[in-house]
Parts: sequence; C-alpha cells; structure tokens
Amino acid sequence: MARKKPVSLSSAAEAAAVQRLLRFKIAVPSWGFADSGTRFGKFLQPAAAVDLEDKLADAGMTHACTGMTPLVAAHMMWDFPEGFDPAVPALARKHGVRISSISPCFFGDQDYKFGSVTNRDAAIRRKTVRHMLDAVQVARKCGSRELALWFADGTNYPGQGDIVQRKGWATDALQQVHQKLPADMIMLVEYKPFEPATYFMDFFDWGSAYIYAKAAGPRAKVLVDLGHHLQGCNIEQIVAWLIDEDMLGGFHLNDRKYADDDLMTGAIDPYQAFRIFNEIVAAEHRRGKDLDIAYMVDQSHNVEPKVQAMIRTAVTIQELMAKALCVDRPALATAQRREDTVASEEILRRAFFADVEPLLRQVRSKLGCPADPLAAYRASGYEAKAAKARTAKRKAMGMA
Amino acid sequence: MARKKPVSLSSAAEAAAVQRLLRFKIAVPSWGFADSGTRFGKFLQPAAAVDLEDKLADAGMTHACTGMTPLVAAHMMWDFPEGFDPAVPALARKHGVRISSISPCFFGDQDYKFGSVTNRDAAIRRKTVRHMLDAVQVARKCGSRELALWFADGTNYPGQGDIVQRKGWATDALQQVHQKLPADMIMLVEYKPFEPATYFMDFFDWGSAYIYAKAAGPRAKVLVDLGHHLQGCNIEQIVAWLIDEDMLGGFHLNDRKYADDDLMTGAIDPYQAFRIFNEIVAAEHRRGKDLDIAYMVDQSHNVEPKVQAMIRTAVTIQELMAKALCVDRPALATAQRREDTVASEEILRRAFFADVEPLLRQVRSKLGCPADPLAAYRASGYEAKAAKARTAKRKAMGMA
Amino acid sequence: MARKKPVSLSSAAEAAAVQRLLRFKIAVPSWGFADSGTRFGKFLQPAAAVDLEDKLADAGMTHACTGMTPLVAAHMMWDFPEGFDPAVPALARKHGVRISSISPCFFGDQDYKFGSVTNRDAAIRRKTVRHMLDAVQVARKCGSRELALWFADGTNYPGQGDIVQRKGWATDALQQVHQKLPADMIMLVEYKPFEPATYFMDFFDWGSAYIYAKAAGPRAKVLVDLGHHLQGCNIEQIVAWLIDEDMLGGFHLNDRKYADDDLMTGAIDPYQAFRIFNEIVAAEHRRGKDLDIAYMVDQSHNVEPKVQAMIRTAVTIQELMAKALCVDRPALATAQRREDTVASEEILRRAFFADVEPLLRQVRSKLGCPADPLAAYRASGYEAKAAKARTAKRKAMGMA
Amino acid sequence: MARKKPVSLSSAAEAAAVQRLLRFKIAVPSWGFADSGTRFGKFLQPAAAVDLEDKLADAGMTHACTGMTPLVAAHMMWDFPEGFDPAVPALARKHGVRISSISPCFFGDQDYKFGSVTNRDAAIRRKTVRHMLDAVQVARKCGSRELALWFADGTNYPGQGDIVQRKGWATDALQQVHQKLPADMIMLVEYKPFEPATYFMDFFDWGSAYIYAKAAGPRAKVLVDLGHHLQGCNIEQIVAWLIDEDMLGGFHLNDRKYADDDLMTGAIDPYQAFRIFNEIVAAEHRRGKDLDIAYMVDQSHNVEPKVQAMIRTAVTIQELMAKALCVDRPALATAQRREDTVASEEILRRAFFADVEPLLRQVRSKLGCPADPLAAYRASGYEAKAAKARTAKRKAMGMA
Repeated sequence: MARKKPVSLSSAAEAAAVQRLLRFKIAVPSWGFADSGTRFGKFLQPAAAVDLEDKLADAGMTHACTGMTPLVAAHMMWDFPEGFDPAVPALARKHGVRISSISPCFFGDQDYKFGSVTNRDAAIRRKTVRHMLDAVQVARKCGSRELALWFADGTNYPGQGDIVQRKGWATDALQQVHQKLPADMIMLVEYKPFEPATYFMDFFDWGSAYIYAKAAGPRAKVLVDLGHHLQGCNIEQIVAWLIDEDMLGGFHLNDRKYADDDLMTGAIDPYQAFRIFNEIVAAEHRRGKDLDIAYMVDQSHNVEPKVQAMIRTAVTIQELMAKALCVDRPALATAQRREDTVASEEILRRAFFADVEPLLRQVRSKLGCPADPLAAYRASGYEAKAAKARTAKRKAMGMA
Repeated sequence: MARKKPVSLSSAAEAAAVQRLLRFKIAVPSWGFADSGTRFGKFLQPAAAVDLEDKLADAGMTHACTGMTPLVAAHMMWDFPEGFDPAVPALARKHGVRISSISPCFFGDQDYKFGSVTNRDAAIRRKTVRHMLDAVQVARKCGSRELALWFADGTNYPGQGDIVQRKGWATDALQQVHQKLPADMIMLVEYKPFEPATYFMDFFDWGSAYIYAKAAGPRAKVLVDLGHHLQGCNIEQIVAWLIDEDMLGGFHLNDRKYADDDLMTGAIDPYQAFRIFNEIVAAEHRRGKDLDIAYMVDQSHNVEPKVQAMIRTAVTIQELMAKALCVDRPALATAQRREDTVASEEILRRAFFADVEPLLRQVRSKLGCPADPLAAYRASGYEAKAAKARTAKRKAMGMA
Repeated sequence: MARKKPVSLSSAAEAAAVQRLLRFKIAVPSWGFADSGTRFGKFLQPAAAVDLEDKLADAGMTHACTGMTPLVAAHMMWDFPEGFDPAVPALARKHGVRISSISPCFFGDQDYKFGSVTNRDAAIRRKTVRHMLDAVQVARKCGSRELALWFADGTNYPGQGDIVQRKGWATDALQQVHQKLPADMIMLVEYKPFEPATYFMDFFDWGSAYIYAKAAGPRAKVLVDLGHHLQGCNIEQIVAWLIDEDMLGGFHLNDRKYADDDLMTGAIDPYQAFRIFNEIVAAEHRRGKDLDIAYMVDQSHNVEPKVQAMIRTAVTIQELMAKALCVDRPALATAQRREDTVASEEILRRAFFADVEPLLRQVRSKLGCPADPLAAYRASGYEAKAAKARTAKRKAMGMA
Repeated sequence: MARKKPVSLSSAAEAAAVQRLLRFKIAVPSWGFADSGTRFGKFLQPAAAVDLEDKLADAGMTHACTGMTPLVAAHMMWDFPEGFDPAVPALARKHGVRISSISPCFFGDQDYKFGSVTNRDAAIRRKTVRHMLDAVQVARKCGSRELALWFADGTNYPGQGDIVQRKGWATDALQQVHQKLPADMIMLVEYKPFEPATYFMDFFDWGSAYIYAKAAGPRAKVLVDLGHHLQGCNIEQIVAWLIDEDMLGGFHLNDRKYADDDLMTGAIDPYQAFRIFNEIVAAEHRRGKDLDIAYMVDQSHNVEPKVQAMIRTAVTIQELMAKALCVDRPALATAQRREDTVASEEILRRAFFADVEPLLRQVRSKLGCPADPLAAYRASGYEAKAAKARTAKRKAMGMA
C-alpha cells in the first residue's frame, strides 16, 4: 500500500528555508502596545504602555523574545506629536529596535470632518501635504524608508461628495508628496472599503490604490491590510497580482472575521494567511530572490494583553512563512501540469499542516532567542512589573 | 393602447391611510442628539446636545416639526446615571414629549470586559440583573412600557469563551428580570452579528433572540435593529416571521451599507426599508388592526446636524409607511394568485414610487405641523441659537 | 413656513432631458428570450424563444413597445454557431432591430474544463484566440462595434492553478486579439468575483479588468455587470472611477440580492441603480456630451415571462436615467460646497423619487411607442400567439 | 527558558480518542459520484458513475479505502425514481455499504416552478406530502433512519409570494409527514439563504428551520449544510446552540468560499470546520456520550475526480474530528476561567495543528484499511478501470 509522503525538505531546501527565515523581519506597531478600543469604549489594562518609552520597551521585549521583530512602525500623532525628536531613535536603539515606517495621521483632527486630502478646502489639503512632508522628514531622520499612508477620507451618504473631484484632489496631494520624496524612500498607499466612512472611502480597494500609486510616481506602492476587504475577497490573488505588477509595497498584518477587526494574525483564518505567504514565497522562488516588502503588524488588542498578543502574532507569522517555505514546489508544479486538482490541493494543504517547529527551533537558536517566545515572555515577570510601574506612572500623571 | 394605472387609493382607502398615519408614532433616541463618533474619533458639532435638557429640547423641536415623534427612547447611562429622576419626565412634558423606552447599559463599564449577563463572574451577572431591575423601576416611574435590552457581550477569539455556558448565563439573567417585570411592561431582546465582539456576539441573530425571549417569558419579544444583519440578509422576511410568531416587539430604525453604520433610515436602501413596512402593513391588513410594535430610531449622526438628521429620518419613515399603505393589496393578491410575477413585482414597486405628498399633507395638517418639516426646521433659527447657547454651556462647564 | 421644492426642471432642462432620453438606447440580449435556469433545473415556458428567429422577433416586439431597445446583443454559441450568417442581420432588420455586440463563448465546451485563455494547453489558448477573431469577423459583418468578452476561467481549489502564469496567458490572448481588432471596434473586458469558478476567477474585479484592458491596448475597455461584485461593494464609485479613467466601455444591466442572480434591473435595489446612472449623467454634465457607453441588459428570466421581463427592465432603465436627469445639479453642487450633508442627500434622493412619467410620456410620444409599454404588450396578444406557435415548433423539432 | 507543550494526549485520552474515531462514521452522497456542474455546464469525467450500481461501487471503494464511510445518502430522483427497489439495498450490501438517509426531491419537476410545499396549488402541496411519505417508505425498507428534507422553494422577486402564507403551507406539510413518521425515524429540516431562489428561500436560516422543526414535532431536527450561510456567519455558534437545544439532527459537510460552492470539506477554511467539530466534541465531553448526529457529505465535484474527492474529504473530516479530540479541555477550561484570552486561543489553535497521523494510523489499522487511503486508491487502478467500463456503458446506452 502506498504511504503518504510527509512534508520533508531536502537538507539543501531546509538550509535555504532557515536562511530565509533568518532574513524575515517584521515591524510591530508602536500603537499596538497602548490601550485601544471600539466606539463602545476601551477596556484598560494596567500593563498597557502609557508613553512612547513604554511602547519601545514593549517592542524591545517582543523582539528579545521573537528575534524577528527589530522594527517599529511609528505614528506621527502618537509618537511624534511635535515633529522629529532625536530622543526617539536613541530610545529605540536602547531597547534593541529601530523605527521602520512613519504613518502620518489623517483622523481625529476636527479639520478632517469632511476629508483630509479630499477636503474641498484647499487650505486643509495643503495642511495634509505639509503633514506628509513633515512625516518624510521624521522618517529620514529616523532612518526609516517607508511613508505609510492611510486616509480615513470618505463620505457617509449618497450625494455628500463628488467622487471624481475627490479622486483628483487626492491624486494631486500624493503627487506633490512624491515629488519631494527622497530617492531612497517609498510611499505606501493603503486602501479600505469602509470605516470610518460608511458610503464610500476615497481609497477603497486595491484597484483604486494601484491607480493612485501609478499616478503619484514610481516610488509609490500599494499597502495591503489583511482586514481591509469585503467578505469573500480572495486576498492572495490580489497579493499575487500586485507582486506581478511590481506594485506591492507592504502589508498590515492582522486577522478579522467580520469587518476590520484587527485581531491577532492567523487567529480566524490561518489557511488564508498561509496562502498569502505562499504567493510571496512562490514569487521569490520564481524570481530567485527575496521580495522587497515591508511587513508590518497592525492590530488592536482590545481584550488580550498587548505584548503577549504581539509575540503570539509574530510567532504565527513566522510559522506561516515557514509553512509556505515547506510547499513542495516541484511537486506542485507537476500536479498543476497534470491538472491533478486533488493532488495539487493536497500538496498545498499538507504544507499548511507541516510541523515547522524543528525548523523554527533552528532559526530561534541562531537568532539567539527562546525556543518558545510566548512561554518565555509569560515566565519572565515583565508584565507584572510593567503593570505596577505603569499604574504608578498613570497616577503620577493624573490619569484614571 | 393600455395606460399604466397610477397608484390611486379609493377615498375610503385614503381616509383609512390618513387615520393609520395619524396613529403612527415613533420614538427618537435621546443619544441621537449628542456628539457621537467612531473608534477613530468624534467630530464635534456646536449645536449638539450637551445634557439631557438639550436632548429633550431637541426631541421636542423634532416633534414640533414632524408631529409624529412624541416619544423619546432613554438610556440609563446617559439619561439616568443616578437612577430615576422625577425632573426628567417633567422636562420631557415641558418639551411636548415623553419617555417611551429605557435601555440599560452594558458597555463602557470595565466590569464588562469579559461579558455582562454572560460574564463568568456571578457577582457581575448579579450586577447586570440589578441594573436591569433598576431600569424597570425607572421605566415604571416614567410611564414607559419597554425595557430595551442590547448586550455588547461576546468574545473576540476562538477558544476565549464557552458558547453554551454563556447562553445559559444569559438565559438565567433574562428569566430573573422577566419574573419581576410588571405585567404591563415588555422586554425587548436585541441581536447583532458582530461589534463590539469580533468572534461571536452572544445575542447574534433573530433565531438566538427568539430562543432567549421564549425562555425568558411571554412578555419578552424580539427587537430588530435594521443595521444588525449580515450582508444579503432578507430582513423583511425575518420581520414577517417574527410577526407571524407574535414575537416582534420593536425596531431600531436606521440604515447601513456595510456594518452597523447607523445612518439615517432609508438613506442607503429605501426599497428594503419600504418592504419591511410593507410586511407590517400586510399583517395589519390581515389581522384588521394595528400591530403593537415599538418603533424607535437608533442612529449615530456623525457628520450630519443632529436635529436635521432626526427630522429627515422621521419624515422618511412616515413616507415609507405611507407608501406601504399605498400597496394595492387586492391587486397584489390577484397577481400572486395568478403567479403573475411581473405584475406582482410591479404592484409593489409602483407603491414604493407612489407620490405620497398629498397624503402626508393631509396628515400633517391634521397633526398641526408644518407641511415640510425639514424646511420648517431649517428656517426656524433653532440650530444657530442652540449652537450659541450650547457653546457657552460647554465653556461654562469647562468642556473643550 | 418653508415648503419643500418639488423636483421641477426648467423648461430648458426638461427639453434637454427629453433629448437625452431620445438618444438613450440599450441592447437586449438574444439569450434573454430563451429558456434558462439554475444548476437545479430549468422551468420551461411555452412562449420562450426556440430559435434565433423567435429571439429577434421578441427583441423586435420589445423595441416596438419601448422605442429604446433597437439593439440586440448576440452570442456566438447560440446565435452564430456556424460563424457569420448573412440571414441574421437581415432577420434582425426585418424585426426592426440590429445586432450590436458579439459575445464569443468560453463555457460549455469540454476543452475549457481547466480554462480557456488561461488554459495551460497552448493549443486551447490558440483556439480561444481564433474564436475571438471569428467573433470579430461576425461583428464586422453585422456592423457591430463591440466584442464583449466574459471568461468563465478560474480555479476551484487552492493550489489548483498558478495565478501569475494564468494572468500572463490571459494578457497574451487579449493582446493578440487587440492587434487584429478593426480600428472602429472596441473590446469589452468583463469581470466577476466567482461563479462558475469557486476559488478564484481570472478576471475577478474591476482592478484586474482595468489592468488587462490597459495591457491589451487602447481600444480595450472595462465592462461592468451589475451583478458581478462582492456584497457591499459600492458599484457607482467603480463606475465613476472608470469613467474618469476613460476606461468604462459598457454595462451588463441586471439586479441581484445575493450572487449573480441576473434579475430584472432595479427589482432589488433601485436606488443603487439610480446612483449608477447619476454618476453617468454627472459625467455627461461635466463633459458637456454623451458618454460613449454600450448599455446592454444581461438577465436570466427563470420564472417570469421573457418579453414582459425585458420590457419591464427597459422601462425601468429608462426611468432611472430620467430620474438621474432630474438631479438638480446646481443645487447639489451648492449643498456639497456648503458641506450640507442633509441637503445634498435629500437632493439626490428627491430626484430618485421624482415622478418622471410626464417626461417619459413626451419621450414615448416622440419615439412613437405606447405610453405604457408593458401594458401595451400585455394587451397585444403576442404572448399567447407565440406560445402556441412555439409549442408547435418544439413539437415539430422533436423537443419536449 | 520555558518550552511550548506539544499536544500530547495521556494514554487514556489517546485510547478514548481512538475509540471515538472508530465509532465515527459518515455517509457519502450517491450523487457525489456522478457528473455534476453549474448553470454554465457540466464537465464530463469518463470515470463518473453512470448509474446507481456505479455509485454504490464507488461508495464501496471509498469505504474500503477509508474504513469510515459505510453509509450512503440516497436521493429519490436519482436512486429510487420508481419508488423502493429491493435490488438497491442488496447492491449496497454487495459493495459493503448501506443506505443511510433518503432525500425526497423538490426541484427539477416543472410542477415546482412556484414552490413545492409552499405552492399555492393545494394539489401540488398534496403531491409533495405523498412524495415525502413515499420516501419514508423507501427509507423504512432500506433500514434508513433519516428523511433528509431540502426544499428549493422560494421566490425570485419582491411581491411574488406571500411570506406568511407560504410559511403556513410549509408547516402544514411537515406536520402531515411527521404524523406518519415511524417512531424510529427522524426528519431533518435543511435551510439555505439563497439559490435557486434569489429573493427569499422559504427555509432560509437555522432560526426558520428550528421553528419549522418545532412545529412539525419531536422527531424533526435541523440539518446544517456548511455551505448554506451568509458570508461571515459563525457556523460553530449555530451548531453549539442547536446541540444545546437538542435540535441538531445532521450535517451536510462541504466547504465554500463564496456561495454554496459544494467543495471538498476543509479545502477553503479548515480552521472553521475544526471549530465546528470542536463544538461537537465539547458537547460530547460535557454530556459524557456521543451525540446522535447524521454526518453526511454533500459535495459537487465539478472538476476533481469523484472518488478521489470523496476519499480526500472523508480523510479530512476524520482528521478534523481527531484534531478536535486533541483539544486539551481541562487546560482550555482553566484558561477560560482565568480569562486568559491568549492562552485559550492558543490551546484551540494548537490542537488544530496537532499531528494526528499517529492517532489515525492506529484507527486505520484497527479498521483494516490502508494507512494512506487516498494514495492507496490512486495506486489501485480503480479509476482507469471504471473510466473504461463506464465509457463503454455510456456508449451502449447511447449517451454522449
């Protein structure tokens, strides 16, 4: 009787997979360590970061445990409210991490009630361009390469705004910023179908982000947030297309069941997340080199402890990448060539269920980090200590 | 050549429609007049209500313009934070309205991080029962009949909670409250598929609300919020089923395109809203009497001026009810009997497009309110005056 | 007290609207007159068209009643199974209509089990190119301008096919056909998220169709089928974008509640259909000329009588266009300029509910067709006669 | 450094899991071995079953390979077109399987154009009741216990049918059949949100099926088809609720990405399928005994070879059940008690990724079937032989 072949990489393939995983780094968002919530309220956590120092310390601890998260995505509103601050990169270094992308902020400000780059008031549009250019300056001084743009712009009602006019204003703003973008920086254009706007978002899907980016200039690329699609959307297909068009700039990694739930990556549909990584690895296999993609986590940890959630997320992402590296590509190509649907489906799914712990043990050992990052963190006492110190800090600052 | 018959009611039918519309009253939510927002922030409006007095004044003005919104849905957290306050019904009366339903509040409080009626901590579950009974007392003293229950309970991740255990706890809490519910009160059980919880909500669809209500007791009924369904759901079918089962207690009226967008009723899919009213009118026609349903608006006016949005909503609802009264039921029954799909579809859609202005002019004249409520409001100067007074009030209270 | 201004066009605007409606012509699909069904079976209708002559007769009758459907979209498989047939245009002329677009057929054939233009077998891909070029020849000889391309290609399972390889093959096929496309013809590229393929379709959304069309050449444009979007998608926004990019080539008009239901246009969400026409009229207003768009109906009349369904559809489309012409654009622009959300929403919705019967009466009178096309058809006796004749024809042909 | 605890069952737990898996049997649908397709056509397979004998042979081969599929779900239209045939059970026995459930057929027949149990023509409704009673007789004679009811009934357009009237007719039909249902049989009531009907289905969701079943009588239970839910629906929650209400009668297992795609179970979202089995195992754990659920596969293998697809499906289902048996329930309960979201999520997901091959090897060895069922089948030569024989049979029968 024939036996099912377990996923077993040749030693060359295994060595290559280990090397690829050693090069695989992701950014954690500074805002993922602070309290966050829904429109119905926030649940506060004693160990949540109070200020930027706490966030960078948490990011550092995350990296110490995972060995693969040396990067921090920063946000103008929360992390650089006064513009560039040289203390920040220094603090990041102190905690063993560095700032990797800068997000200007286009929500929260009352000026943006009717749009930021799509606001009909030219003065407000100029303000958004200035703010993006400020963010570019901050990025340069931080040594970051990515300007990550998400616009909350949109309208709530039919009739409220002129779709075409707004498209023109947004294009114009992006072009202005792209003209002044340093040659070694890229501009990432994110899209989202709804929320906060409820009738349309001006950057509503990958097609629209693609057109905006093409119009802005050659260093504008598309940013895919895994939670920003309509139900049923085949995200891995979009990813494959953007790679093929040389237009994929980065990811906001997370998971969702319903809307933009910002849950821990892989918590709801890990197979879909795996298929996305599979397209990346397939493209790297095709091209013979790593793709240049900014991998960023973007999650909102509303009930789960922040650092734990971040470590669990990073480990999941690493596992998914490892599983994608376990796809037997020659066998898959053969099965596809034979139109052997059942076999090709099985080859893909088998890699998804491959036990990648042995691979990751090697990687973690070389990275010098614990074999089980989450357990190590939970055993470290960090959270209790942070809770105590931050509660005191909040008290001293007169916060609840 | 044959001519299309316009919708024209017989004079008896017209008189009956006018009478039905004169009896058709809806409640506006006190919270619909205050500033509200999304998780990305609130856009503040100078004329937004600052306190309960403002809200009741706005409700009064809404009623003065529409003649059909004499009722105010009140919320324990915002309107009765200290329990019953005899000043409130008096104030409502002063503004020509009265409190019609009371919503206890099960979000915002840190105790509810892991559930309110589904919390595994029995002390918290007891607290929720007490809070519901307090709301019953407030309702009695206000002369309100409906206890409107929406629970934000749910979990964010697979594994986080035990679905069955939580179902049991929720059922138990509802039963305890039902036992003490005065004989002339009803308990409305609302459902929602997601938000704030992102993996499951404990009251997740009409089937679950039906089972909870049946278990609670005969005065528990289901509350249908038009924004609380998955995409594609046929809401009018649910409404027809609940009516047929004698289990429809009330509505939270609003509209949405994507998630629970809480937009002005009828702003996105007016034909769907019409079909819902059509099921109500069809049932009233079948039974020969008005259905006993609590019609409540539940909207979140994030960018649009609050009172204007409420008046436009009330007028739309009245129009939709009027259009439903224009359905030629004998003709529809005949077309259905003949399986004449095209004719039956046309009869329904023709009523939707019927010009109900003449009918509403009669109704408004009898109600003693302006023929064009929104235009009347906009011409009244109320908003500018409110903006000025409330800005001063905010300043005096030390608010931004 | 202020009064609501009814939608009333100035006499110049009314005259312009009448002229625009006189120029507004749509194509009906030949296949919409024949029996069709679902995977669960077909319900047969005695009056359904048996052959192409019946279909053209039905199209002619539809046009005689509506005055706005002089065009017939034809399908290679059903209408030109043997290639061009000079009898067809003659027959069309006899019935007062003409062939306006040609759809080659990429489903049904066993060769296409694993794709047509995306098939890994180069011989099959060559066959698809030949078939498209054959269709071009048929189109030329019919005097049609549009080659309407819908590919059923896709995969059912993860792993089954290589997304990028398939994208390349499809692009190549389109380019080959575009090279040989006569200068006065255009190629319309349709997209669809799912069905018949269940994991991905190769032409899956407007972004993908846009990229394919751009790669194919300047005479390739995007075809929007109203039923080919994921739930929640804002179709009017896509339409506005495609127009702004000069990439909108045509429509397949229909309606749906769930999947690609192919129902009569406007039967489920007429307000959405109106908003689509509103974007077209807005663009024509902006540019000062009619847009060059191929308007085609694509419906599957499974239970409703075919010609009735087509007439009702045509009339609905004309009404929606008329309503879009009733939008008070200066007032809307003013309300938008003032960020008067409630007013702008009301202006749009008021036009939707405008009574366009007087306008359409003028148009129909000038077109020389009945004032109520559907009633005229129903009174004509055509259906009973067709049922009798076609039942006899089926019998003679040995069909059930 | 702490180490992650792999999923390792105690030897008692492992033995119990093996026993549970030995008792775990599922039914394969006879129709899953025949050619099937979409409304765009069927792709024919030489090895597809031509007649019932082929289907039973295929089912027998499936069972020989998997050891867990001794049951065949049969369909009145295809398998008992003339009523009970004693040759069928005998033939099934010959192939080592037996008929386990009977599905009467309510589609395809022209009589059902406007409904079967909801048809306004009482004669047609009586016909449906007779057909169900015929199916009951067939079931009795086959020794089957389940009458599996799926009604394609619904309407395509607003206005076409009367929701409440139809609900009454359907209820009445179910009650009539239930009254005559032998005491040892159960009636399974399936639901589906859309397709073939496009405006509403009369049995549209679990809430409606629950109400119908309650009205029919105590031996009516709900049948959950995994592909019959709106996008985003939390199916495992419905399953948990139905179990808790003692109303879950059976499953139609399959997977889908978009609509009712009828793909191989676990091919699109295996984690969701796992969570469903987890709710079953959790309930069995709670109650200390196996639940009495009819597990049936219901798939449509359009491009993949039929028997291969069925074996892969059966193996996947067995794996998912095995994984659900690997959930560390005491640890999960502890994590839930501590509101340790990250740990509880991890416990569940870890079981999903558990390597259950060792467990299944034991099970398969005890069942006397090959260790790798699919590989064994592919190596067996069955498919080539079937293709040859069935091609000859088709030829002999004058089929294409």
